[in-house]
Amino acid sequence: MIDLLALCAFNAAYADAIDSDALERWPDFFADDCHYRITHVENEREGLPAGIVYADSRAMLEDRIAALREANIYERQRYRHLLGMPLLLEAEADTARARTPFMVARIMATGQTEMFATGSYEDRFVRREGRLLLQSRVAVCDSTVTDTLLALPL
Amino acid sequence: MIDLLALCAFNAAYADAIDSDALERWPDFFADDCHYRITHVENEREGLPAGIVYADSRAMLEDRIAALREANIYERQRYRHLLGMPLLLEAEADTARARTPFMVARIMATGQTEMFATGSYEDRFVRREGRLLLQSRVAVCDSTVTDTLLALPL
Amino acid sequence: MIDLLALCAFNAAYADAIDSDALERWPDFFADDCHYRITHVENEREGLPAGIVYADSRAMLEDRIAALREANIYERQRYRHLLGMPLLLEAEADTARARTPFMVARIMATGQTEMFATGSYEDRFVRREGRLLLQSRVAVCDSTVTDTLLALPL
Repeated sequence: MIDLLALCAFNAAYADAIDSDALERWPDFFADDCHYRITHVENEREGLPAGIVYADSRAMLEDRIAALREANIYERQRYRHLLGMPLLLEAEADTARARTPFMVARIMATGQTEMFATGSYEDRFVRREGRLLLQSRVAVCDSTVTDTLLALPL
Repeated sequence: MIDLLALCAFNAAYADAIDSDALERWPDFFADDCHYRITHVENEREGLPAGIVYADSRAMLEDRIAALREANIYERQRYRHLLGMPLLLEAEADTARARTPFMVARIMATGQTEMFATGSYEDRFVRREGRLLLQSRVAVCDSTVTDTLLALPL
Repeated sequence: MIDLLALCAFNAAYADAIDSDALERWPDFFADDCHYRITHVENEREGLPAGIVYADSRAMLEDRIAALREANIYERQRYRHLLGMPLLLEAEADTARARTPFMVARIMATGQTEMFATGSYEDRFVRREGRLLLQSRVAVCDSTVTDTLLALPL
């Protein structure tokens, strides 16, 4: 059975990959046939499927990271994720569904720090060959106006 | 014995009820004869019992939610709770005392996000018929000036 | 083996000592021959050893607290730490290495609250006579411009 501590450890590693500029490791947290989306609470409530960012395979996530590197986006800003304890909604031997709150601060090259995004991950996990992977992560932002600023993954 | 993980899971569900607009579920986290209070660190240090918000039964919590719904308070703002790991101060088979730090962001309908409140929950838990419940939660805010803005529960 | 939950409980107690103005307890979280440093991500990347704050014994930590008390620094500001789940990098019976993200809000006597610092602790733990202690904690701030404001420990 997938348990709370396993999800905590997974999320700690996920956030660390983004925040410590190891973006190339980020796609490895996903299954090949994954779904990743950033959206906001109003779009989600109205069932609008297209989000701010959308990917439906790990290859698309890899493309996104390559594009960010080319744009040198990491020179200009860093993120710091603080994740809450997952709320375990369903847990089976090799699958789980969970919701995890996040706060993300953005630190600009000037040193300015601001609360960049808050919201929750709506997650489906699978265990394949002993490894926990995201089958689907939808990052639902609480605010409707972060869109244009988004660059690094949430 | 009530352990750390049980409190973590409880707190994750508590915060989720508030942040995902399931306010009607919020009183269910409390025992019938509960104590709930929002206060700030200076009032608490001086032993002033009356807080910013005060309830001494679950029925009062239910009344508060009904009032918030009537005022459509949720249309105008959302909260996002990030809770730290509880500091377990005492743990018995069916009771526990813990202190848990919180940061709460407020997201206005305009999309504006701000650090709304920080502080700690001073908690007494009881287990009744197998369910963990709050006998007492005192939300002690670090700042003395959040009073007039308070609306949703902390 | 030192496990995730033991580190979580340790960090909860550590943050509570600072945030609840029990600063005299703060040095007790360190081994006698400890290393404590506050630095930022650019200094760390360039391998600059001197940080914003530096101590290489518990006695130096005690001196620092005495100086803060003399300056009445706690009358003017409070901190609130929110710590993420530790990323366990190595774990043995009596030693461990971990990285833990933090967000620290600062609450001024005026009540003003701001995101003061974000970053990660780079930690080495030891267990001595059954107690977990920090052999080394390096608080690596994400921003390069918090220096002059630093007062309380991170």
